[in-house]
Amino acid sequence: MIPKRDAFLLPEGQAYLDGNSLGPLPAAAPARMEEVMRSEWGEMAVTGWNRAGWMALPETLGNRIAPLIGAGPGEVIVGETLSIRLWQALAAALQLTDRKVVLTDSGNFPSDLYMAEGLLQQLGQGHELRVVAPEEVAGALTEEVGVLMLTEVDYRIGRRHDMAALTAAAHDTGALALWDLAHSAGAVDVDLRGCGADFAVGCTYKYLNGGPGAPAFLWAAPRHHGALHNALPGWLGHAAPFDFELEHRPAPGIRGMRVGTPSILAMAALDAAMDAWEGVDMAEIRAASLRLSERFIAGVEAACPDLTLASPRDPGQRGSQVSFRHPESYAICQALIARGVVGDFRAPDLVRFGITPLYIDEAEIDRAIAALAEVMQGRLWDDSAYATRAAVT
Amino acid sequence: MIPKRDAFLLPEGQAYLDGNSLGPLPAAAPARMEEVMRSEWGEMAVTGWNRAGWMALPETLGNRIAPLIGAGPGEVIVGETLSIRLWQALAAALQLTDRKVVLTDSGNFPSDLYMAEGLLQQLGQGHELRVVAPEEVAGALTEEVGVLMLTEVDYRIGRRHDMAALTAAAHDTGALALWDLAHSAGAVDVDLRGCGADFAVGCTYKYLNGGPGAPAFLWAAPRHHGALHNALPGWLGHAAPFDFELEHRPAPGIRGMRVGTPSILAMAALDAAMDAWEGVDMAEIRAASLRLSERFIAGVEAACPDLTLASPRDPGQRGSQVSFRHPESYAICQALIARGVVGDFRAPDLVRFGITPLYIDEAEIDRAIAALAEVMQGRLWDDSAYATRAAVT
Repeated sequence: MIPKRDAFLLPEGQAYLDGNSLGPLPAAAPARMEEVMRSEWGEMAVTGWNRAGWMALPETLGNRIAPLIGAGPGEVIVGETLSIRLWQALAAALQLTDRKVVLTDSGNFPSDLYMAEGLLQQLGQGHELRVVAPEEVAGALTEEVGVLMLTEVDYRIGRRHDMAALTAAAHDTGALALWDLAHSAGAVDVDLRGCGADFAVGCTYKYLNGGPGAPAFLWAAPRHHGALHNALPGWLGHAAPFDFELEHRPAPGIRGMRVGTPSILAMAALDAAMDAWEGVDMAEIRAASLRLSERFIAGVEAACPDLTLASPRDPGQRGSQVSFRHPESYAICQALIARGVVGDFRAPDLVRFGITPLYIDEAEIDRAIAALAEVMQGRLWDDSAYATRAAVT
Repeated sequence: MIPKRDAFLLPEGQAYLDGNSLGPLPAAAPARMEEVMRSEWGEMAVTGWNRAGWMALPETLGNRIAPLIGAGPGEVIVGETLSIRLWQALAAALQLTDRKVVLTDSGNFPSDLYMAEGLLQQLGQGHELRVVAPEEVAGALTEEVGVLMLTEVDYRIGRRHDMAALTAAAHDTGALALWDLAHSAGAVDVDLRGCGADFAVGCTYKYLNGGPGAPAFLWAAPRHHGALHNALPGWLGHAAPFDFELEHRPAPGIRGMRVGTPSILAMAALDAAMDAWEGVDMAEIRAASLRLSERFIAGVEAACPDLTLASPRDPGQRGSQVSFRHPESYAICQALIARGVVGDFRAPDLVRFGITPLYIDEAEIDRAIAALAEVMQGRLWDDSAYATRAAVT
């Protein structure tokens, strides 16, 4: 079953296994965008902010994402970029504790580390970002730690932290838990409420298919909504932005975490992407992801003994991507793309594949195995084929 | 002459005098967006970051905006929202001075005040936001002031600060000058380099016509490029983001001020909007703006004695908008919209009109005068006609 393949315009002639970096174009998106541009921006112009519901989109989109991450209505706000959302969530969490240490791991996405370090430097006064190896996180949860800040699924190898256990461990030592769901939302069965997490952030351009650079989201546990600190208090987080008061007065609840004027065009594409998630059960997606991942690992290991599995072998410790190591990974990746199998390279030696059962199935997996086998057995890679390495995670 | 009327799809049957809030749809934008969605996102998918030039858009778009604000190539970066850009610019400016006071005025857009206050609270250590009346700014430039932070053109009444004189006065007292160009870029003849300004930020959804919530921009004087402090050090401001280093190492120059992954769809619309600015001389736009504004003021004052001019009478002290005061301004505004003349209301008593000679001329001005005359002379307003007041500035 690939319940939603028709909901996407997949790149012609490809097995697209890079939806963990950029999800494909939803079939509904071009017409939706045309309508928003011509009938809303073009006809309503400035009145679209009310008449077309633009002003509420950060909240309505948040409510569409909520069921995929175990959140309730009124708990998720969409907009800005993930780096900004991470900054806000961490600053809000730190406002709830007197402790100065933020604990994270070296498998975290670098932008999270950069933003956290930037925030803690700005706060000064003994604040410290403590970075340990992923497997050392639980042991490093001392009583100095105010906030445990982790990305649930590692962007390179797909290692998945145990969100429930680590959140509980953090709470046991009096720390708050902030989760980055960049590689989780739409990928694995996240249950923020069930885990008792405090804050979460994520992006929508990977498994949610919102488009290149689509807006980010922020979730705060309802128990914190009464005292949400917005460290970036832009005007749309104000209780009455159009009263243009000189002093900031935060809007109640998650709306108080809004910052600037949101891109309606970016949100229109995301809204079309969310149509494809209607009626989808994340437990089924997770089951299909594991089935396809196991098939992929078994097939590649049988055909390509030179590739070393970098992802955890235990499916319970894996997100929805599979990575292999090889010194020539960059060239291997390009040789695969030339054969219509799109994964991506991550320095220094990883080739990475996203498993997205919303729109792929065994056919793509088997095609990828066959292409890898052909490239590896024939040593067909050629590292001069492409000049640039960059692709957005 | 309206050199670019054909470059826009103006709302049917309207005199649109609200381009200072949201610019109209560029005629080229829907096709551009269709192409970016289908041929780039749809076909190239993740490889679009390089093959379609997505990754460089914040810089290429910055270079397109630069000539309109008196900036050079490599000096402007596009992305994020204006509130975020203001935060970054102010934090960068404060890094260049030991002084703790930021001077601004009460005519500044509230989000600038909120963000500045948020930043200064976070910095602590005696930092202070000092808010004076617009006409008191020059006199308040004491040697305590580290940064003069102003919006050049007041969002409500269009009062225009003398950027060159105030920048010079700031420098004379040892302060830096940070300008918000939200109501200036594409509206008046800005000359950042000529004025010797230090930092500037602005939005692109007003006079630049980039679309609802289009991305913001940030400019830094080249003399500061060697020591630009990015207080929101997201991964795309890193010198080598795809090396995924654990420590932030800023990219050289204005690129170091990038934060998160930019919305390519929002940028595609802005790119189409910038086509309309090709070959446009801001001095000509300014001359046409003043001619139309004078005609509008004279016509309204002759026909509507109950309306009081709120904007400065001296054209040299005015941006590209004209506002009038009346206790029933909200209802008057709605009655005008019902007659196809779109301005907007600003609390408590302003009706505001944007003058955008890129796509309007005497015909719209005369139609607006006639509609105002009809509404005011017949007392035809009805304040129950519309339930909501909000429209984005």
